[in-house]
Amino acid sequence: MTPVDAAPLLAVTMGDACGIGPEIVAKAMVQPLPAPCVVVGEVAVMRRAVAACRLGWPIAELDEPAQARQLPPRCIGVWQPPGLPDGLAALPMGQVHADAGRAAIACIEAAARLALAGRAGAVVTAPVHKQALAAAGSPFPGHTEMLQALAAAPGAVPEVRMMLANDELRVVLVTIHVSLKQAIALLSVERIATTIVLAQQALQRAGLAHPRIAVAGLNPHAGEGGLFGDEEIRLIAPAIARVRADGIDASGPYAPDTVFMRARHANRHTGEFDVVIAMTHDHGLIPVKYLGVERGVNVTLGLPFVRTSPDHGTAFDIAGRGVADAASLRAALSVAHQLCGGGGLA
Amino acid sequence: MTPVDAAPLLAVTMGDACGIGPEIVAKAMVQPLPAPCVVVGEVAVMRRAVAACRLGWPIAELDEPAQARQLPPRCIGVWQPPGLPDGLAALPMGQVHADAGRAAIACIEAAARLALAGRAGAVVTAPVHKQALAAAGSPFPGHTEMLQALAAAPGAVPEVRMMLANDELRVVLVTIHVSLKQAIALLSVERIATTIVLAQQALQRAGLAHPRIAVAGLNPHAGEGGLFGDEEIRLIAPAIARVRADGIDASGPYAPDTVFMRARHANRHTGEFDVVIAMTHDHGLIPVKYLGVERGVNVTLGLPFVRTSPDHGTAFDIAGRGVADAASLRAALSVAHQLCGGGGLA
Repeated sequence: MTPVDAAPLLAVTMGDACGIGPEIVAKAMVQPLPAPCVVVGEVAVMRRAVAACRLGWPIAELDEPAQARQLPPRCIGVWQPPGLPDGLAALPMGQVHADAGRAAIACIEAAARLALAGRAGAVVTAPVHKQALAAAGSPFPGHTEMLQALAAAPGAVPEVRMMLANDELRVVLVTIHVSLKQAIALLSVERIATTIVLAQQALQRAGLAHPRIAVAGLNPHAGEGGLFGDEEIRLIAPAIARVRADGIDASGPYAPDTVFMRARHANRHTGEFDVVIAMTHDHGLIPVKYLGVERGVNVTLGLPFVRTSPDHGTAFDIAGRGVADAASLRAALSVAHQLCGGGGLA
Repeated sequence: MTPVDAAPLLAVTMGDACGIGPEIVAKAMVQPLPAPCVVVGEVAVMRRAVAACRLGWPIAELDEPAQARQLPPRCIGVWQPPGLPDGLAALPMGQVHADAGRAAIACIEAAARLALAGRAGAVVTAPVHKQALAAAGSPFPGHTEMLQALAAAPGAVPEVRMMLANDELRVVLVTIHVSLKQAIALLSVERIATTIVLAQQALQRAGLAHPRIAVAGLNPHAGEGGLFGDEEIRLIAPAIARVRADGIDASGPYAPDTVFMRARHANRHTGEFDVVIAMTHDHGLIPVKYLGVERGVNVTLGLPFVRTSPDHGTAFDIAGRGVADAASLRAALSVAHQLCGGGGLA
């Protein structure tokens, strides 16, 4: 494990102030942390969250994010970006509010700027609410699109992909939030090859010199030689051939129904692959979620910095009660640390 | 548990004589059996399998299938149907042979007739080889189509569906061996409703008075209200409404990525549903196979009798060596017994 002093700083956004974000961020700050963490949020909101969770831990208001490296155990370092709306801690819990949306956006922007300036190694985001973002006038439906825009060079929005990871399995999705019919239509050699390359880059940065990348097929039995569909022959196999020519250890297309089982790392089962490329949202997410969603981490590949988040939403129904489970956010901190090259990637 | 004397007889076909079928059938006959079993096969082939597995168990050649009820423990009762080709036990292992195909077909036909006549409660089939069936001149690519034809009344081939089951999960598939594109095109209110009804009938026959049936969506987030596809609105929801009107406890459509996790029955996790209806081959099989294929059982719903089989093939590469794992066939015996109403369905 990298000593904490040398480890990259993780910038942790508080998320929507009316959701469970501040509570799970507070709970997640229990030692030992995988790396020093600075909470990018509002101090009063974080105090309310600490109280709701009955943690009794002090909050240190930081002038500089880097001061988070010098905090004693169980002291939560909060760096408040400029321009947050007033009265956030007085907003009713569990409701959509434009000010909560504005504050969430300001924190995400500030955290992304820290990462882009090299002042933080990774951004870990607590959940935001789609409607609160819209009420705040954001043109972006979520984190990913917002971070893509923040990271864009003039005229060059980076192509991103979603990776889902838990203790057993890593999956990168070629297509996500479109109908299954449209997902099939979106598949192309280019799109599949780009996904493989982004997976390769992320795992290499995390310290795996030669990641073993399995590419799942689209159709039953990976098309059974063209009998059950030809996307494997027309698109997937050529994409694999293209990246293999560049020295990437990608293989497949494999039958979707067994490739995830084969890649699974569990106690008595060593996975054959380090990551699986899935053509559709549900081919990839069904196995990642099958054993429970508590430990699932969402990773955005393709940004110029590491970004992870827990695999759940703002949970307005339980917000403010101090009962939200911080396990997925804790896992997101660990995965962010690993993907920064902080060791521990198996 | 039903006393073995009263339990329905399971007719177990030996499968392709050159594959692992006879070996796993022999190994599976270890006591305690869930119900009395008669092996429908050739005596010399079964002797060769017992020798390959070094079991040292005697084989009883039965004149009548029902005599299998009176056998001592570890005695394998084999009933040889008429018309088997000569010299089967001399065929080389691990190769396609027309005579092995012919024998496999004769055993399947004989077992199906026993079940249709009420002389066996269920048919459990060991694996056959597609090419051996073709070499034998069969017009059928596999068990399912053959059994469908055998069970057909004049002009009325029964509609069948594949169910996959393991200790944790039961899944019934609306579509199977077609391209994903074609699977989407095949979906209809009729087809989905029929699948739900067949699942309901099978679980009721197995003793669940009111099975809780979850219906998975097709698209990410089950279509997110029409944003990611409209099959949920046009087809799946109306199918659920139709069967609910008949008193079936079906619900959904649920997001495919979490419904299997919710249905999972495991040690510390009680499943919310007794079965999940999946729209595509891989939505259903990815979660069933994720934890390993050893315990997966294939069930054909819609036939006038119970039919189960292990979830693997003839494994020609290891046939004759006595090393094949009989776990899936053992599980197929148990599931067949359960689906006959033999108790134990949780």
